[in-house]
Amino acid sequence: MARWQPDARDRLAAAALDLFLEQGFDQTAVADIAARAGVTERTFFRHFTDKREVLFDAGNRLQNTVVDALAAAPAGLSPLEAVEAAFVASSNFLTEERRPYSRRRAQALDSTPALQERELLKLAKLRAAVAEALGQRGLARPAAHLTAEVGGSCFLAGFDEWIRADSTDELASCVQRAFADLRAITSPS
Amino acid sequence: MARWQPDARDRLAAAALDLFLEQGFDQTAVADIAARAGVTERTFFRHFTDKREVLFDAGNRLQNTVVDALAAAPAGLSPLEAVEAAFVASSNFLTEERRPYSRRRAQALDSTPALQERELLKLAKLRAAVAEALGQRGLARPAAHLTAEVGGSCFLAGFDEWIRADSTDELASCVQRAFADLRAITSPS
Repeated sequence: MARWQPDARDRLAAAALDLFLEQGFDQTAVADIAARAGVTERTFFRHFTDKREVLFDAGNRLQNTVVDALAAAPAGLSPLEAVEAAFVASSNFLTEERRPYSRRRAQALDSTPALQERELLKLAKLRAAVAEALGQRGLARPAAHLTAEVGGSCFLAGFDEWIRADSTDELASCVQRAFADLRAITSPS
Repeated sequence: MARWQPDARDRLAAAALDLFLEQGFDQTAVADIAARAGVTERTFFRHFTDKREVLFDAGNRLQNTVVDALAAAPAGLSPLEAVEAAFVASSNFLTEERRPYSRRRAQALDSTPALQERELLKLAKLRAAVAEALGQRGLARPAAHLTAEVGGSCFLAGFDEWIRADSTDELASCVQRAFADLRAITSPS
């Protein structure tokens, strides 16, 4: 890959988010994003298939981080413990430096159903990838699927906590707290 | 409401599903659906905002069924037990007569990302409505949200089981089994 590519990609992601927040998703054309990032439309389409995808680039890297961590989790852990370890490892990618971007990105999503839909589809893919990785650890399909689903819910609950305006805990702590909440919710009353 | 409306609505839903499966979602225009149902395009748009919505009409009624059941659940139940009772009540709406339609609908969704995205958005709304109803039962927001999320995952797991080609158990049993699986997954190892 040429040396300028990562830069253009990041500039496009930042420009798109700025424009979505300033003038709205529907009012923002790919040409606007490219112009703000100082690149051509052709460069935009070399990196992204459409203007929605710009905000989901990090999601693919997040998925790799989580799936790799799940594969590396000790064999002695229960499936849910392994999934917890994997989602806690998301903080290796979603670091404190990324939190302001994640907060602003959540704002853009809040006001745009088209982006929410894409987000939900990406999260469904993340959960499917986790279920697949649990299958490779020897867990049967229905249990793998359900564990991945509820693990994903805990991750999201922790993430939502992390991006709250007044939150100071790092993502790993927020995710761990959500898994603890899950165990409290599901323990016999 | 005029007497013919429910009929036209149901005919449109059946026609849309037939056409999506026969020729694909992208290749099906609203005009095709209206023609197959024997109504005008204007009638279509009196009932639905776009061709995706036709497959999600039942989802709104499902949400009402679940939320009403949650409001009616005995006060002595734990939040998760109340959510389980609410999702088990979905079988009052998703009856055995509806199973063939639900199976064919799932086939149409499988092959169409645009429909999957809409489905995920509707399920997110269902979970949000359940979280809201849990709030009205006095549960604090983070716990209400997480309980609704994982309860929704159990409902989906049960629903997926219910629409499997070889499944004969009714939806209520499938959903109860998924909640039992959840408790097994999250119990201390």
